[in-house]
Amino acid sequence: MSAVIAGFPDHAVLTEVGPRDGLQSEPIFVPTSEKIALIQALLDAGLRRFEITSFVSPKAVPQMRDAAEVLAAFRDREDAHLTALVPNMRGAEAAIEAGVDAMVLFASASESHNLKNVNRSRTASLKGFADVARLAEGTGVRLQGAIATAFGCPFEGEVDARAVVDQARAYVDLGMDYITLGDTTGMATPALVVKRVQALRPVLGKSTTLALHFHNTRGVGLACAYAGLGQGITHYESSIGGLGGCPFVPRATGNVATEDLAYMLMESGVETGTDLDRLIRAAQLAERIVGRELPGQVMKAGPRLKTASMDSVRTANG
Amino acid sequence: MSAVIAGFPDHAVLTEVGPRDGLQSEPIFVPTSEKIALIQALLDAGLRRFEITSFVSPKAVPQMRDAAEVLAAFRDREDAHLTALVPNMRGAEAAIEAGVDAMVLFASASESHNLKNVNRSRTASLKGFADVARLAEGTGVRLQGAIATAFGCPFEGEVDARAVVDQARAYVDLGMDYITLGDTTGMATPALVVKRVQALRPVLGKSTTLALHFHNTRGVGLACAYAGLGQGITHYESSIGGLGGCPFVPRATGNVATEDLAYMLMESGVETGTDLDRLIRAAQLAERIVGRELPGQVMKAGPRLKTASMDSVRTANG
Repeated sequence: MSAVIAGFPDHAVLTEVGPRDGLQSEPIFVPTSEKIALIQALLDAGLRRFEITSFVSPKAVPQMRDAAEVLAAFRDREDAHLTALVPNMRGAEAAIEAGVDAMVLFASASESHNLKNVNRSRTASLKGFADVARLAEGTGVRLQGAIATAFGCPFEGEVDARAVVDQARAYVDLGMDYITLGDTTGMATPALVVKRVQALRPVLGKSTTLALHFHNTRGVGLACAYAGLGQGITHYESSIGGLGGCPFVPRATGNVATEDLAYMLMESGVETGTDLDRLIRAAQLAERIVGRELPGQVMKAGPRLKTASMDSVRTANG
Repeated sequence: MSAVIAGFPDHAVLTEVGPRDGLQSEPIFVPTSEKIALIQALLDAGLRRFEITSFVSPKAVPQMRDAAEVLAAFRDREDAHLTALVPNMRGAEAAIEAGVDAMVLFASASESHNLKNVNRSRTASLKGFADVARLAEGTGVRLQGAIATAFGCPFEGEVDARAVVDQARAYVDLGMDYITLGDTTGMATPALVVKRVQALRPVLGKSTTLALHFHNTRGVGLACAYAGLGQGITHYESSIGGLGGCPFVPRATGNVATEDLAYMLMESGVETGTDLDRLIRAAQLAERIVGRELPGQVMKAGPRLKTASMDSVRTANG
C-alpha cells in the first residue's frame, strides 16, 4: 500500500519511549532482565530508535537505577539509536560514560511546570543545557531537546506559541538537531498540532528534525498524529502498550500506544519498518511485566483483517 | 474559535446512539426511567438527534422492550429528531405507531455478516426495506439506511467498495435521504474513510446526507472522524461514554464516545451546539446506570483547560 492520503509522508520513524517514560512511573522495580527482554522484543518488531533509560538520581527514581546496565545490553547494536534522558551534569557524565548515542535534555514551555518538574526556572534549565553541551563536545554524543507542556500546561492552561518557538530556537543554538514537542498532560489537539508545526517550521529549517510525542489522555492522541502527518512530520514518539500514565489524572491514559500508532500509519500507507504482530506480542509482554491491563487497543482487537468464525460470536444488529 | 483546519466544515451534527446501540447489548434491563433520564441529560447537553430505541422482538432483545414508552417521553420535543432501528415490518408498524421521526433500516455490505446479524441474504433485506418504504408512504415518517460492515467484515475481511456503493444506491432509490456507514467491528481506517466518501459522493449527490459511525476498537475512531471532516462530512454518530461494546472482542471498546468526539470537534473549530461539561456529566450518568467504567476519555481527564493545583501532583520528568 502506498501513501494514500494527500500530503502524507511515505515513511515515518517511531521512537519507543516505553522503557524510560513508560516504566519510570512504575512503583515496583522492574528487574533489569525484564527491561532488556522488552527492549529486545521491540527491536525484533523492527523498532530502531529508543529512549531507553534515564540517568537520574537512583534515590529520586529508583526504577532507573540500572540505566548503565540496560544500555550496556544494547550499545553494540549498530542499527539501534539509543538515547537517555539526562536532567543535569552528573547524569550527562554517566550517560556519556555508558555510551548513549544522544542525550535528551528537557525543559517545559511553561514556567510553573518546569519549576514543579525539575525545581528550577526555565532560564536556569537552559543555562544547565549549555554546560551539558560543552561536556558533550568532542565525545560524539549528540544532544536532543524535549519541550514539555508544548501544547498546554496543567497549571497555567494555554501555553504561548512564542514560548515554544523561543525554546526551540535556544535548542537549535545549543546544537540540537532533534527536537520533540511533548504533550505532557494530553492537551494537544489536532488544530494545535497544525499551529505548532507551522510556527516552528521557520525556526527549525531543514537540518533539525521535529518529533511529536502525544498523550492519549483525552482520546485524541492518534488524531493529533494524523494531523502531524498532514503537515509532513515523520518522527513520532510512543510507548508500547501505552505504558506510562498521566500523573495528573488517576483514571486517564498517558502515552499513545506504539502498536496503535504503527497500525494507523501502516493503514495510511506510511511505512514504519515495524511488524504489527510482533509489536502486539511486545505489548502483551509489557502487560505481563507490569502485571495489569494496558490501554493499547490493537493488542486487544488484533490486526484489522483477523477474521472470526461465524460460530464464535453473537451479533447485536449493526 | 473558528474552523482552523483547511477543508473542515464549520459545524457538525452528532447523532447520539447510546440509548439504542449502547444499551442494547447490556445484559441487565435498564429501567425505563433511567433510560429517559439519560436521554434528558443528553438533550440538556445540546444533542438533538437520537437513535433512541429499537423496535425489535422483546424476546430477542429484552433490553428494548420499552421502546414505545421511551419514545413517548420525548416525541413532543419539536426540536429533537428521534429515530428507531427497525428490523422488519412488525417493527416498522410499531415505530410508526409510536411516533418516530424516522426509521433506520440496516443491512450489511458483506453477505456473511448480514446472514449472521439478521438471518437473511442482503437481497432479502433490501426486498424487506421496499415493503417498509411502502408502509411508510404518506405517514410523514422518513427512512434512513445504515450500511453495516461498510469498512470491513469480521468474517470476510475486506469489503468491496462496489458492494457499499451499490447498497447506497439502492437506499437512495428507496427514498432514503440519510445514509450511515457503520464501522461495525472497528475496521475503519482514516485512509479507508477517504476512499469510501469519495466513492459514494457521485451516488449520493447533494440531497442525501452521509453520516459516519465509527468504533474505537483499534484506537483510530477519532482519527477516522478527523479524516471524515477533511472530506467535508458533517454528520457523525457516537455513543455517550462509549457505551456499547464490540461483540467480537471481549476487552475491546466499541462506539466512539460522544464527549470525546465533541471535544475533538470543538477543539478543531467545528461547532456542535453541545456543552462539554454537560456531556461529561451525562457520560458519568451512563457509567452509574451500567455500573462499570466506560471507555470515554474526556470524562476522566476533564476539559482541556481544567488546571490542577501545583501542590496536588507528583510529576515524572516530561
